[in-house]
This record gives sequence, C-alpha cells and structure tokens, in this order.
Amino acid sequence: MSSVFGKLFTVSSWGESHGKAVGVVVDGCPAGLPLCADDIQIYLDRRRPGQNALVTPRMESDKVEILSGVFEGKTTGTPISLLILNEDQRSHDYSDMIQWYRPGHADWTYDMKYGFRDYRGGGRSSARETAGRVAAGAIALKLLSQVCKTEILAWVSSIGNVDSSMPIKEVTREAIEASPVHCPDVRVSKKMESVVKDAKENQDSVGGILTLAIHRPPMAIGEPVFDRVEALLAMAMLSIPACKGFEIGSGFAGARMHGSEHNDPIFVEQENFHTRTNNAGGVLGGISNGEDILCRVAFKPTATISRPQETVSRDGEKGTLVAKGRHDPCVAVRAPVVVESMAALVLADLFLQQRARIDLF
Amino acid sequence: MSSVFGKLFTVSSWGESHGKAVGVVVDGCPAGLPLCADDIQIYLDRRRPGQNALVTPRMESDKVEILSGVFEGKTTGTPISLLILNEDQRSHDYSDMIQWYRPGHADWTYDMKYGFRDYRGGGRSSARETAGRVAAGAIALKLLSQVCKTEILAWVSSIGNVDSSMPIKEVTREAIEASPVHCPDVRVSKKMESVVKDAKENQDSVGGILTLAIHRPPMAIGEPVFDRVEALLAMAMLSIPACKGFEIGSGFAGARMHGSEHNDPIFVEQENFHTRTNNAGGVLGGISNGEDILCRVAFKPTATISRPQETVSRDGEKGTLVAKGRHDPCVAVRAPVVVESMAALVLADLFLQQRARIDLF
Amino acid sequence: MSSVFGKLFTVSSWGESHGKAVGVVVDGCPAGLPLCADDIQIYLDRRRPGQNALVTPRMESDKVEILSGVFEGKTTGTPISLLILNEDQRSHDYSDMIQWYRPGHADWTYDMKYGFRDYRGGGRSSARETAGRVAAGAIALKLLSQVCKTEILAWVSSIGNVDSSMPIKEVTREAIEASPVHCPDVRVSKKMESVVKDAKENQDSVGGILTLAIHRPPMAIGEPVFDRVEALLAMAMLSIPACKGFEIGSGFAGARMHGSEHNDPIFVEQENFHTRTNNAGGVLGGISNGEDILCRVAFKPTATISRPQETVSRDGEKGTLVAKGRHDPCVAVRAPVVVESMAALVLADLFLQQRARIDLF
Amino acid sequence: MSSVFGKLFTVSSWGESHGKAVGVVVDGCPAGLPLCADDIQIYLDRRRPGQNALVTPRMESDKVEILSGVFEGKTTGTPISLLILNEDQRSHDYSDMIQWYRPGHADWTYDMKYGFRDYRGGGRSSARETAGRVAAGAIALKLLSQVCKTEILAWVSSIGNVDSSMPIKEVTREAIEASPVHCPDVRVSKKMESVVKDAKENQDSVGGILTLAIHRPPMAIGEPVFDRVEALLAMAMLSIPACKGFEIGSGFAGARMHGSEHNDPIFVEQENFHTRTNNAGGVLGGISNGEDILCRVAFKPTATISRPQETVSRDGEKGTLVAKGRHDPCVAVRAPVVVESMAALVLADLFLQQRARIDLF
Repeated sequence: MSSVFGKLFTVSSWGESHGKAVGVVVDGCPAGLPLCADDIQIYLDRRRPGQNALVTPRMESDKVEILSGVFEGKTTGTPISLLILNEDQRSHDYSDMIQWYRPGHADWTYDMKYGFRDYRGGGRSSARETAGRVAAGAIALKLLSQVCKTEILAWVSSIGNVDSSMPIKEVTREAIEASPVHCPDVRVSKKMESVVKDAKENQDSVGGILTLAIHRPPMAIGEPVFDRVEALLAMAMLSIPACKGFEIGSGFAGARMHGSEHNDPIFVEQENFHTRTNNAGGVLGGISNGEDILCRVAFKPTATISRPQETVSRDGEKGTLVAKGRHDPCVAVRAPVVVESMAALVLADLFLQQRARIDLF
Repeated sequence: MSSVFGKLFTVSSWGESHGKAVGVVVDGCPAGLPLCADDIQIYLDRRRPGQNALVTPRMESDKVEILSGVFEGKTTGTPISLLILNEDQRSHDYSDMIQWYRPGHADWTYDMKYGFRDYRGGGRSSARETAGRVAAGAIALKLLSQVCKTEILAWVSSIGNVDSSMPIKEVTREAIEASPVHCPDVRVSKKMESVVKDAKENQDSVGGILTLAIHRPPMAIGEPVFDRVEALLAMAMLSIPACKGFEIGSGFAGARMHGSEHNDPIFVEQENFHTRTNNAGGVLGGISNGEDILCRVAFKPTATISRPQETVSRDGEKGTLVAKGRHDPCVAVRAPVVVESMAALVLADLFLQQRARIDLF
Repeated sequence: MSSVFGKLFTVSSWGESHGKAVGVVVDGCPAGLPLCADDIQIYLDRRRPGQNALVTPRMESDKVEILSGVFEGKTTGTPISLLILNEDQRSHDYSDMIQWYRPGHADWTYDMKYGFRDYRGGGRSSARETAGRVAAGAIALKLLSQVCKTEILAWVSSIGNVDSSMPIKEVTREAIEASPVHCPDVRVSKKMESVVKDAKENQDSVGGILTLAIHRPPMAIGEPVFDRVEALLAMAMLSIPACKGFEIGSGFAGARMHGSEHNDPIFVEQENFHTRTNNAGGVLGGISNGEDILCRVAFKPTATISRPQETVSRDGEKGTLVAKGRHDPCVAVRAPVVVESMAALVLADLFLQQRARIDLF
Repeated sequence: MSSVFGKLFTVSSWGESHGKAVGVVVDGCPAGLPLCADDIQIYLDRRRPGQNALVTPRMESDKVEILSGVFEGKTTGTPISLLILNEDQRSHDYSDMIQWYRPGHADWTYDMKYGFRDYRGGGRSSARETAGRVAAGAIALKLLSQVCKTEILAWVSSIGNVDSSMPIKEVTREAIEASPVHCPDVRVSKKMESVVKDAKENQDSVGGILTLAIHRPPMAIGEPVFDRVEALLAMAMLSIPACKGFEIGSGFAGARMHGSEHNDPIFVEQENFHTRTNNAGGVLGGISNGEDILCRVAFKPTATISRPQETVSRDGEKGTLVAKGRHDPCVAVRAPVVVESMAALVLADLFLQQRARIDLF
C-alpha cells in the first residue's frame, strides 16, 4: 500500500505529473463536518506553483472538484473523492529524460523497481503528487479545527545558511503568507529571498529547514510503542519528496544536553498540567501532553538544476545531463502547506483511534 | 495497533518492565530459515543491561525461549513466539512513582490516556519493551543476511559534545563491541566514557547520537509516496524510547547545501550503477538504489536522574521528586542493537512486499 | 477503512448513486501489465443496467476513464485511478425517501450511524457502488489471467425455487452471457426468466443463488489461520449488497455428510497431485490446492418493491411506503460480474502476498 | 498477516498443536476493564477436549496465564499476552503423517506453500490453535458485555440430518451447556448424540451446523462497503478450521423468497425502532440495526477418520492411509465457544472503530 496512508482516516493518493489529473480519496472522515470546495481550495492555492519569481513558472489553476462524500454542504461519512485536473502539461522534449538518469531523482530507482516509468515530468515521483495530500490535509485540518480548535503552522526557518531565530509564539499565519519564502521573520526573509534568487541565477538550487508548530493538539493521542505521535509524524514528513530529516522538541540538539537541562519541569495552572520548557516537543512516551507539538523538517536542495551533471543512460552509457524544464530553485519554500497537511493527516487519524479508556464510553 | 509493526513481516510486541515477562510474536517470516534460540540470544546479550559501569545495574539474564514457529531447526512460516522472563524485578518502594509524575517520563500522559497505569518501573513505557524488538530484529537480520547478505551496523557517533568523525567504511562490528560506549572510534571512545561517567557522578544523564549504516540492502525496495524506505526508517527510529530525531544521507546538513553539491553523480562500474557521493543515503524517491543506507538517530539524555526536580502529583499538588531506582546515565550507549533491529524489521517487511514487476512473476 | 480492500493489491472505492461519479483507486498492481480502458469496459458493460426487461431501466453508459497509473499501454506500478461519471440521475421526487425508511434498506442504519445521509437513490449503499469494484476487478482478472491463466466464472444457478443442476465443467462464458438471467443452463433459463417477470408484474422481487468457479487459481495461496482463501472470499462476497450467504465446496450440504464421503481422495496424474472429488472446494487449511475453487453465494430479493409496506418515518411516525423509482426485480441476475470481480480482488491480493518460502527467493 | 486479526482490537495468534504452547496477544483492549485469568479460563474450559465420550480423549488442562497488560485486576490498555502450555503431547508414531497426505487435511497444501511442515498433530493447522482465539474472545466478550450488555450464544442446531427447530428466543446458555452435543433442544439432543456415537463406532465422523445469536449488539457498528458486519463475521467464521459455510438472517433460504415476504417491516416501540421479522439478521447495509444478529455456520465432518483412505505420499507414491491418533468424531460439537469468540472479536473491533459522527465527539 504505497499510496494509502492512515488507519481510520485513510488517504489514497493517485496521479502523475503529466497524466490527466491528480487526486485523492479520503475515507473515514466523520459525518457532519461542513465542507465545500473552497475549504480545500484555500490550501491548494497556498501550494500552487507560479506565484512568484522564487518558484517554478509552471501554471496550474489547481481547481479541486469534490466528486463524492459531501451532501448538502456536509460530509456524509462516506469516501470523499477529490479531483484536480492537470492543465499545464507543456509539450516538451522528454528525450533526455527517457534516456539519461537525472542525479538526485528517482528515474534510476523507478526503472529498477518497475522495469519502466512514466518519464514525463517525473511521473509519480513528481512533487505534483503532493497536491492530493494537501487537498486531503485540508479536510483533516478542518476536522481538527472543529473538534479541538487545533491550529497547525509550518514555515521556513532556514534557507542555506540563513537562519531565523524568531520565537515560535510570535509566528502567525499572516506573517508566513506575507513572505515570498514563507519565513515570518522579517529580519531574515529578504536575505533568504536573495539566497534563492542567487541559486536560481547560478542555475543551481538550495535547501531549507521548516519549523512545524501544532497548537492545541488533541490531548492524549498517540499509541505507545510503534504508533507514537512522533513516529507517525516522522514517517509523514520523510514521505514528502526531498525531505531528509525530522526532529521533535529538542531533536538533535537534545542529544548534546544533560537530563537536568532537558527534562521539562511540570507545573499546574488553573487545574491544567503544563511544562515550563518544551524539550519534549509536546509528546511523552509517544502520547501528546497538550503542549505545542514542535518539529523541524529538513529539505534537500531541488534535484533538478540546469548545470551539466555527470550521469549515465538507461543502458549504462556515460554522459552529461543538462536538465531542461521548469523547477523550483528551493523546494522548502513551497513545502509549508505540505508539512501542515501531513501533520494534520497524522493527528486526525490518531484522534479517531483514541478509544483508550472504558470509563469514557 | 499500537504494538503491531509491519505489513507482511509483522511484529506484535508485549510486556511491561515489572510484569512476568516481555515478548514478541513474529508473523510472516518465510519458511526454511535456519533459526535457533542462540541466533536471537546474541542480539539480546548485546542489549542486556548490567554489562559495565556505564549502564544500569539491573541484572537480567534475558534468556529467550522460542515457543512456536520453528521445527527441526528451521522456521515453518507460521508465527514465531518469543518469550523473555523478567527476573530482576527488585522489590522496591514505588510510592513516589505512584504519586509524583517524573519529568521527561510518560507517567503523566499514560494516566491521561488510560486513566491509570502500571507504575512499576515505567510499565509499558520502559525501555525494557525493546528486548522484544531486538529478539524480532534478530530474525529479520538473519533473513536479510541469508537472502541479500545485508549487514546492519549502528554505533554511537556522539555523546554530549564529543563527536567521532571516523569514516563509515572503517567501522566494524568488532570495534563497536570493543568500546564500552559502542563507539568504534578509539580516538574519542575514552572521552565519551568520561562524559558518561561524569554525568553519572553528577546524578545526571547525557544524550547521544547514533549512526546507522546498512550495507548491501535489498535493491529497489520501498514503496513510493507513503511507504518510502526513509519514511518507514524514520517511523521505526522515532518509535524507540528517547529518540528525538532522524536524518538520512545529508540530513539537516543537506538543507544547507546547493543542488550542485548535493546531487550524487551516477556512474557505472562492472555493469552496476553507483553514485560517487551518497548524500541521498541510499534512497531515491523512497526506493533503495543499492548504495549503503546511511542514517543518524538522536537520543535525548535519560529522563531518570537522581537530582531533585520540580513536578506535580497525580492530584495536582506541587512538589519535588528525587528519582530512585536503577537507570542508564546515557541511553544512547545501549541503543545500537535496538536501532539495528528496527532497521532490520523495516527492510525485511519492505523486501517481502517487493512484487513490483509482472516480468518477474 | 470501510472502503479500502486488500493488503498489497489495494482497492479504494468511492461514489454515491446520484453524485457526480463513482470510481476506484487501485494501488499495488505490478508494473508492465498491458491495460487499456477497453479491458475494463468489457466488464462494466456486463454489469451495466438497462440491458433488458429483467433489469432496472436506469440508463448509464458507464464509460470508464483511466486517470493515472497507465503509460504507453502498460501499468506503471503506481495507483490506477478509474472514473465513471453518473449520467442518468433522473430528476426525481425524493421526498418519500427523505422521510420514510424503506424496509430492507440501509436508510435507517445510515441515519443512526451518520446522523444524516445522501438519500438520493440510496446514496453510498446503492448497488451502483459496485461499478467501481467491477472496474478494479477487471484489472485483477487481467493480472491473474496473465500470470496464472486463471479464469473466473460466476452464474445464476437458482432463482426463487428454480434450480440448475448443470455440471460446473460444462459452463462457459458464452452460455452465461447468452442467458438474460445469466444462467448457462438452457433447460431452466426460461423458467427463471418467468419467475423474474412474474415478480416484476406482481410489483415484487425475488432472490437467487450464484455459483462461482475459479479455474486454474494460483497454487498455494492463502494465509493459514485468519487470511484463508475461503475466509477472504466469504468476506468479499458478503460485502456485496444483498448478499446473505456464502459456502465453499460442500458447504452447508457438507454438514450433513460423513467424513468417509466428504474427504477428497488424493491421487497423482502426470506428476501433479489432484483430488478425485472436490468437497473441499479447492482449499485445504485455507490454502489453495490447485483444484477449482467452487463457491455458492446467496442473494436476497431486491429490497425495493412497489407494493405498500409498513414502516416508520425518521421521526418515528407510523406509515405505509410505496417505493417509486427504477429497480431490478432480481439483483442476482446482475451479480455475476460483481462476484467474479470480488473473487479476483481476493486472489490477486493473496497472490502478491505469496512469499512463503525462503528457497524461492 | 496470516495470524493477526482486527484493526483496533487486534489479536495475534501463535502456536502449534505439539509445540511448547499456544497463545495470543490482544492489543487495543481499552484500559480499565476488570480482568483476571478466571474470566478467560471459563471459556477455555468450555472449549477443552476430554470432557466426554463424544469428543477427543486428548487431555489438556488448558490453564491460561496472563503475562502482561493487566495490573491490579484491570486492563492497562497495553497488549495482553496469554499463554496456554501444551501438556498432552503424547509420544506418538508420526511416521505415517510425515509420509502420507491425509485426505481433507492441510498436509499437502502446507508442504506446497512452505516446503515442509511441523507434521506433529497437524502443527499450526490443528484445531488446537483455536484455544488462543477463545482466550482472546473471552476478553472481547467481557468488553462487549460491560459496555453494551451484549450476549453471544452459539449452539449446535444440526448434526448430520438431525435438525433442531427450537425458537432462538428460548435458547439459554444453561441449556446449551447441559447438552453433551451443545444442542439446547432436548427433543433432538439425544438423537444427535446417537449420530455422533454411531459415526465414532463406524470409525467415521459427521458434520454439523451451528446457530449464532448475538443479543443486544452494539448499535450502528459496521462500516459500509467492505467492512460490513456480515462480511467480517463471514470472514471470521470461515477462518475457523472445518468451516464450509456462513449465512446471516434469511441466508440461502432468503434466496428462495420474494421481497414482499423478505423485507422486515419497521415499527416503533417505546421510542425505539424495531423490525417485525428479522430476515435481515440484524444488519442493513452492513450496519447493525440493534435487532439480534442471527447467523448459521456449517462445519464439515472431521477430516481425521480411522477408515482406510486412498491417498499419496509426499513423493507422489500411491497408498492407503489409516489415521491413528485421537480426534473428535464431530468438530461442530466443540465449535460453539469458538464461534462465539470469533463473533466477539469482530464486534469489539467494529465497536472501537465507531467514530462516525462529528456531533458525537
């Protein structure tokens, strides 16, 4: 089940970059959630390419159509099928992509695994596949928002060697969206823009790091041992194309610390339990404790670059490839809405599985 | 299914720290694999506490018993049930643990989720649960070793601020096991020992980072989109107690790089395709390309420390906790065999799912 | 996951009777299988209503569109999304269906479960949902046919009290399709037609029984204990709307027999093992033995009838309902292609899971 | 996952007939359910062989031990591991069973699938494996009993050609247990005993049919389309060794009826909706409507008989087998507690998945 995600809130993703459409079937969304195409479109619009000079010029209107599962403005509890037509399948000379394996891409491994591949624009391994995830995530986000007032924000906190040190509590949706690189920190956003522009002008690309903050997550979700909140978030993030790393709370820096610094002291405020610090990142033993869930997610530089690169052909011939076609110089810039969507899918699924106590039936 | 892992090679883990036993049921191992208790015992012995002054003094012989699924020295294809009795359940005063929530532990979240908990030694959230995973991993490792000659090595590459820069290709099983801190790099192993000892003497603990190298992994495994090799490895690692971060290949450092540095050039040697560098970490588009799979895994400092810590009681009373009982000052030191086991479980499962091409039937 | 079926060959079904479309996503089909829309259309045409006086007059062209997963005439190993637009959504007065619960239908239970429902034409509980299953089944059938030369035939063997005693080995696809009631037995087909016509004229409906024969099934598939061939076939059949019973081999009649009659003697012919009788129905211990897999599947009479029936309204008011709208007087007549499709989905999934022996790697 | 059953209430079964033990791991049982070994032992005692002359003389005390998941008399929400030691592994001459395939048994198919098998007493395909299911079912039954007052009764309603026509509402647990053949109908129980005794004396065996009645099932459980109540019950029943058929409500007889007879009229009594008849068997559209869930389950005659039977050896040699060893002349007699247990596992799992309406959160 390579393309099915989730146990009770289940997402089945389909579609290739240059096929007729991409889409997703969401099964297991409870009935009665108000939902219309616009609720989903907002997220697709945030993901959509062609918005400014820092992202790929491919133009897609990415209009979502709800084909099932919604009746009279509410979900019915039955599968919700979402369709997004591919429009800008630019007529293009793919002969290079048929022949030569692009370094950093899945051309080689798809051919090994499947014997052949849809080579147009990366086929299934294209980042275009994430449109379906974002559409599904929009539904999960609406569900979480309705039942727990959960808010999920992801933003760019590093590009290349430019880092933001903005405190998480100051980050707002508005500030994220106001920045062309989706970095809410006005002190560094311009610098990041320069880094991306420079990479583009140099026919190169650059990597970046996202921060993910989940405010008011459902309490006590997560299944100990394997289906921990952090384990499923890690899986969800590493399933995004170009993602190379994930950390929660203190993360890799936490491995440098002592227990006496790292342990988050617990206190009570207005009858609720809280921690003074949040090195845990909102989970203890795999279970959410109600504090913000905080993660960081690393994205490599876009694999497609226009510089000549050493590679081989399908037949094992040595050669040099100069990639053509449109691409983002920094995939991290477009990743926030995908990261938010994947986080929402994990949380919605764990939330629905939460039947842990017989005294709550 | 909090305690079931894998789709075809399925592991069902059970057991609490101070219950009668811990164990695991492995379902889906192909028939005909030579297997005896000693094959598993080797791995449990590597995991076992009580080995030296740097780990917990809890004494467990951790003798594994195979209760089913093996006949005349070979697996039968039916579920393999493995049992490890708990021996050293030291009679202990748990009154503090009943009452007070230990910072950095799951006491609080278990109580929230389940209404009550087995408070003896952390119950199910104890690292003792990983004994079952290691037992299951031993079978997965033997399977991979037989069919692909796969070798999986994990070792400590950082403790606190002491880092090893030993080249991965020089690391051997012998060197790992020769070090009390499981760091094969003789130049820094002693320094790491000091850091752990200092932490212990200071009634404190310290974190660490592991490197994981998978040599000769099965080719072309991993399912695009959600069940990518790196996504499942991330999930597997973040499901280990105290794990806070995961990266593959270039990881977080890759987010600082340009595409022209990051893309691994492809070349052909003796009719096999290889990459000159391995920033990808052995996967492209979620599918293994045959190069070493390389990851790093971050572990926080042990949560149990003997210093006084601010916390609250079940009933919300403020207080100070001084933890008693035995514990490891650095969980990372005992983690390598657990990391190897989890990696093996992921690979064995993906390997068995590999039916991607109709021309191979 | 109410609408997802299968572990490796996974089908995600979506769509309501009077929504925009119905469809299915097939994930896990191996790459390299030749596939075009016509391969699927043949099966949908067999299922399509409006073919003769014995079935519902609803007119649907049921044209399938392949939206993904096929490239240059072959499957790529990625999800195959199939779309079937709903055309004949006759403008209709649904006020009765909103208000009154139709006996034998799911109106009542959908309202209980979901709080409200898409009442147009039965919504998700409509037999129209089976169009997606048939489309998916067509792919499974093609896969099985290519790799094992498997042939799957289902036909009507009883309608009301008219039974066919035609030997299974004499049944052909042609004879099934030549009969308006899909009974290949010319001796009783006409009588069955009369029973259906009488039911229709009497504003009534009638039930029927199907026989399912799977010739040349994959050998040694089926997982002992829970995922037995017969267990998954039973699940698949009972998941078809209106299905009330399933039996394999001797079935309920076998419960009347003695062991000495029932046990199928084993013999060898041209180095292959066979059984002289087939009371087992092609499975022993849940595993296929290579003999024909033989089942029978019972369908109740269509719930929608035009006679007045005692019922209640949503609000609990007593009343009498006279159903309007188009319907089949005997659902069994249209069920063979659905039964074949579900059988194919079970077999394809078990076939792909077949990694039981290490000596076969 | 041949030996794992259920999505949220997950059962992992293991163990062979003549291995050290059989057992089960139950994962997903909510915390707080009072549970002790005696709760489970009652069910195992009902299943236990050696009780009277009509069943196998194998003597097993079948004492269950709870190894995990229960603390201070209540479930903790973590996996419950149950162990049942095998005691009466009579030293036995298995040379015939190694060599010759027993007709009606899985010897042949296990060898095909796995290359070899544990031939002692049928190994994994032995009915002894059901001890684990019964132990797991006991927990599911206790859960259902606590949260819904559900009662599940199964009994023998036919043996050979002797049928009981006792009304379901008159059947009690006491009457079932009072009968050596588990038929509560005193008018026919003696006749059934004779049929079984005759079969035994004739070195033969005989089949039987069970009726299953689920009183006060959870309301509105069952997931439309694939995970219908009846689909999962069918799968559960056909997964029991020797089961050949399943029907719900009107079943195969319903296929003989007209819609006007079959549809169950709906009425209201004390603000609850009910049906006047119950041809539906308690489910509409796959969802429970609150009426009794009524099924019938067919069991073939025991495959092991002492008469000479035509068969072949592993190597394809023709021969005649006369089975030795202990066996039940009628497996149906011992099946009721297994049928009840499997039904309980299905219902508990669907009950925990029931998160269908956002207005109920």
